[in-house]
Amino acid sequence: MTKKKTTNIILFSGDYDKAMAAYIIANGAAAYDHEVTIFHTFWGLNALRKDEDKMIKKGFIEKLFAKMMPRGADKMGLSKMNFAGFGPKMIKGVIKKHNAMTLPQLIEMAQELDVKLVACTMTMDLLGLKEEELLDNVEYAGVAAYLADAEDGNVNLFI
Amino acid sequence: MTKKKTTNIILFSGDYDKAMAAYIIANGAAAYDHEVTIFHTFWGLNALRKDEDKMIKKGFIEKLFAKMMPRGADKMGLSKMNFAGFGPKMIKGVIKKHNAMTLPQLIEMAQELDVKLVACTMTMDLLGLKEEELLDNVEYAGVAAYLADAEDGNVNLFI
Amino acid sequence: MTKKKTTNIILFSGDYDKAMAAYIIANGAAAYDHEVTIFHTFWGLNALRKDEDKMIKKGFIEKLFAKMMPRGADKMGLSKMNFAGFGPKMIKGVIKKHNAMTLPQLIEMAQELDVKLVACTMTMDLLGLKEEELLDNVEYAGVAAYLADAEDGNVNLFI
Repeated sequence: MTKKKTTNIILFSGDYDKAMAAYIIANGAAAYDHEVTIFHTFWGLNALRKDEDKMIKKGFIEKLFAKMMPRGADKMGLSKMNFAGFGPKMIKGVIKKHNAMTLPQLIEMAQELDVKLVACTMTMDLLGLKEEELLDNVEYAGVAAYLADAEDGNVNLFI
Repeated sequence: MTKKKTTNIILFSGDYDKAMAAYIIANGAAAYDHEVTIFHTFWGLNALRKDEDKMIKKGFIEKLFAKMMPRGADKMGLSKMNFAGFGPKMIKGVIKKHNAMTLPQLIEMAQELDVKLVACTMTMDLLGLKEEELLDNVEYAGVAAYLADAEDGNVNLFI
Repeated sequence: MTKKKTTNIILFSGDYDKAMAAYIIANGAAAYDHEVTIFHTFWGLNALRKDEDKMIKKGFIEKLFAKMMPRGADKMGLSKMNFAGFGPKMIKGVIKKHNAMTLPQLIEMAQELDVKLVACTMTMDLLGLKEEELLDNVEYAGVAAYLADAEDGNVNLFI
């Protein structure tokens, strides 16, 4: 039996367009029969946030972060030409027009394709994010788990 | 006969400095006898745009994108210290002073070194970019072609 | 004797959070017994700057760059939610609260773990940075040295 090839993506960015790129590559690699992991760290964790406000008791700075960071993939801004939220509307407009997939749809597809979605526990701590705030079926791990996957990986990317 | 080593760079960024880094690494790897591919996606496609206005019939949002995005490598801004266009002037000033290469020169050199320049067809569709607007000798492909190159790659980077 | 696995990180970014990610991965990989190199280029060089003003004779543009770029890791801004310097204060606040490591501490640890810190000589030239301005025990090299390390690398990242 040959070992499966693997793709290991670190999603650091909280931008809608960069997260799209990460998930398009991940889904492509999964269709290509790779074992695929997306390791969400720092602002990339926002892609995994649920839409609802979970009313969790937090410290002051953690509350500030929670308020200021986008709650879920659909709320994220663009890395370029964000124009106070108009850019994401444009992108979503052309996505719809071209029958392409939105970021929430890409994430759903990734879950159907068994892409392993990992949330970085260390940065969750720092930003004050709790497991109840993130999507179901997410795994929780740290940098050691990432390295164990990536050190024999075929396609390793930091996005 | 041994297989050539390969370098596969995804250029997602539309920043002058990041594109410089991508092309410097690519040209270095080509000189190092790697097979090198730069896969241009999202804002990275702007590095491949021609300088001229091609007057192509486009939809409304596509026209907006075409207007707002830099037309070609020389027009791109900086990722840091852009200062409404003053940053790029500074960078170009020091490039000239140190006899280093500008981004358009780096791209020309890449073409001479047979670096494969690929434009991502899916994001061209999204941003409304047409083949006539891009440099000659560019190849057109999607994420599957990228993965076929990258899965056995030596140096894979997302920039 | 088996060859050690290697991790090769290009740190292009001058953001505090991205540099933190780079050093956390680097230190993790070193603890995992990888040979680790961080190749600092463009704005990433600022992470290696000393805190003091070294009063070096420079040209006009080089002086401007030196003034405007952060002098050392502790002065760097965030890639997201920088809020004119308030964001870094928040991050440093939560780092302290969670007994996590600040960027200067992560860099110190990297040096103790024998992570090879390299400064890109070509971009030092461009930005007008001199060896006297950078931390001790930094190596100086160009893209060829990076490629020699990375072409047989296990984990190659551009941050």
